[in-house]
Amino acid sequence: MLEEWLAPKAAALESRGLTRRLRARAADERLIDLAGNDYLGLASDPRVVQAAVDAVHVWGTGSTASRLVTGTTALHEELESTLAAYTGQESALVFSSGYLANLGVVTALGGPGTVLVSDDHVHASLIDGGRLSRSRVEVVPHNEVGAVEKVLAERNEPHALILTESVFSVLSDEAPLAELAEVALAHNAVLVVDEAHGLGVTGGGRGSVAAAGLAGLDHVIVTMTLSKAMASQGGVVLGPSLLREHLINRARPFIYDTGLNPAACAAALAALAVLQAEPSRPGAIHAAAARLATACAVSPSAGAVVSVPMPGPREAVRAAELCLAAGVRVGSFRPPSVPDGISRLRLTANAGLTAAELDRACDVIPRAIQEVS
Amino acid sequence: MLEEWLAPKAAALESRGLTRRLRARAADERLIDLAGNDYLGLASDPRVVQAAVDAVHVWGTGSTASRLVTGTTALHEELESTLAAYTGQESALVFSSGYLANLGVVTALGGPGTVLVSDDHVHASLIDGGRLSRSRVEVVPHNEVGAVEKVLAERNEPHALILTESVFSVLSDEAPLAELAEVALAHNAVLVVDEAHGLGVTGGGRGSVAAAGLAGLDHVIVTMTLSKAMASQGGVVLGPSLLREHLINRARPFIYDTGLNPAACAAALAALAVLQAEPSRPGAIHAAAARLATACAVSPSAGAVVSVPMPGPREAVRAAELCLAAGVRVGSFRPPSVPDGISRLRLTANAGLTAAELDRACDVIPRAIQEVS
Repeated sequence: MLEEWLAPKAAALESRGLTRRLRARAADERLIDLAGNDYLGLASDPRVVQAAVDAVHVWGTGSTASRLVTGTTALHEELESTLAAYTGQESALVFSSGYLANLGVVTALGGPGTVLVSDDHVHASLIDGGRLSRSRVEVVPHNEVGAVEKVLAERNEPHALILTESVFSVLSDEAPLAELAEVALAHNAVLVVDEAHGLGVTGGGRGSVAAAGLAGLDHVIVTMTLSKAMASQGGVVLGPSLLREHLINRARPFIYDTGLNPAACAAALAALAVLQAEPSRPGAIHAAAARLATACAVSPSAGAVVSVPMPGPREAVRAAELCLAAGVRVGSFRPPSVPDGISRLRLTANAGLTAAELDRACDVIPRAIQEVS
Repeated sequence: MLEEWLAPKAAALESRGLTRRLRARAADERLIDLAGNDYLGLASDPRVVQAAVDAVHVWGTGSTASRLVTGTTALHEELESTLAAYTGQESALVFSSGYLANLGVVTALGGPGTVLVSDDHVHASLIDGGRLSRSRVEVVPHNEVGAVEKVLAERNEPHALILTESVFSVLSDEAPLAELAEVALAHNAVLVVDEAHGLGVTGGGRGSVAAAGLAGLDHVIVTMTLSKAMASQGGVVLGPSLLREHLINRARPFIYDTGLNPAACAAALAALAVLQAEPSRPGAIHAAAARLATACAVSPSAGAVVSVPMPGPREAVRAAELCLAAGVRVGSFRPPSVPDGISRLRLTANAGLTAAELDRACDVIPRAIQEVS
């Protein structure tokens, strides 16, 4: 049954060179990693590791239930209040994944009375949130504020959400947050900003919303992931306390999901503490990203990711393989993971790279690109 | 903006006695826990704890990327092959949450060419998967095989998925899996069984699909959560290898989500090892559930959860508070978390309860129920 159904699909993908396969990392692998999203370089930091270990000893290996039953520990509350304070928000609510955080906020505020105005480069989780919410969704060209305003002005729905990201994952460019917030206010809409690639990276670590002076406003909502700069797992929605209460009561991906495990809560808290104690870390990300961008002759990145356009998916994969063989792990973007259909190498700068590692990467990667182009 | 939008909704919920609030557990709390889903009593087992701690030391605090980039570790692969072997399946794919596993499998197989025949008691994540997939969804009365067959026979779509659970979360009753598998085969459909409450509990631990001799069939798919009996976090989809490959390439909640953190992978692996080394644990769950059911004068449960109908939501909350004051934590179900609108106390048996704890619970809970009824 599944055989006849899925085998032709698998063959079709294979013939286009688009089959994705998992490759497991070994524990003793020694590569220069420019593929992971550990932007602050904290996933193996002894302080973060120790916090996770302590949490497992104190709280056990799982949260054991949904947050509303008995899956909320004092650690979850501490993480939420600390994240809110750090980013200048009134409250925060932690989900077990960034994907679920985005689904949660969009579905809890979406529906027939809400139009969603969605930038055409937003993350899959925001797109899926829109579909799941059964809202009318208007996709607008990337970063075009005028197009957003037009939809808001012409709408019939009482409510509207603008969906965007502070730093976009593929192009690593920034959204015009101040203008979007202004347009939102003028048209009685709410701006939802995914800071997955902003937290720990932009605004000195606090993210682009805080840097733009938009944190804590009654018409701005922020989502984040804990699995990138925070070296952990999980997602967060930040905004007014009434929003948090609404999500607790209405967001199905929050209500019907098991709470984030204690180790992940503690790791994120510890990573945030390191970031606050060592405020130069975000600057190290930007410096590394600038070097990588220069080495690959692409324009500078607003965040940690440097994207290098490639002729096609096969070339992107081949270049990544050449880098790997030379001891440097890089990622690649291929359709359907790219909003514009252009395959790319994806290089992630992180604050933990040594000067020697960066030198080596800036030697290996341009050569690999040249070899396949 | 959010204030005017959400404040009236919050007030409306409050006036009906349906506002949900989070209450954090303290680390030093000493309660008899009949609310969590740690069915095998392993979340603080020293072997499981140690495995999680070791994993944090070896692998760090996060998987650092999506599974397809560099978020797959050797631990993920070991967990997948071990779970598949234990449950008699050809392959397994781990997601960062059970919610995402269900969204992933339903959306990757759903769409305009697929009808979903969904039991009206299935979990929110399967319902949301149906909505997100844009399939035609036919909801059928609980456990009515004839209704399922009728939809399958009359459909125009080439593909069909039957969505059910092996043990349902609210009533804790079982689905007629053998009959459903037979009907699926006869009508060229695929049976999707959520074993969130079956793994570690039914079939001697291997779940109800294995117990019914349905594991490994080409028209049966199983989903599971690692956050209940496995004392961890995350979700799994099990079935033919071609299904796994299809999900890796098509399931957006897999592709665009960070991999499960190493501590959670290791904890689940260790819990599975304990279960295999101590095969009497599932029996202890059933014995405890039977005692609780008898004490509360309700019919026996197929799984770990004993549900006790209450006059209304306020009574359910009040009874749970009385139990808590007497040192016993129980859960409650209130609308909209109950498929039939009946509020209930939710008692979770687990294999870690001592005889004295069970005695105490069987004394406290019936008295609390009586006091509010």
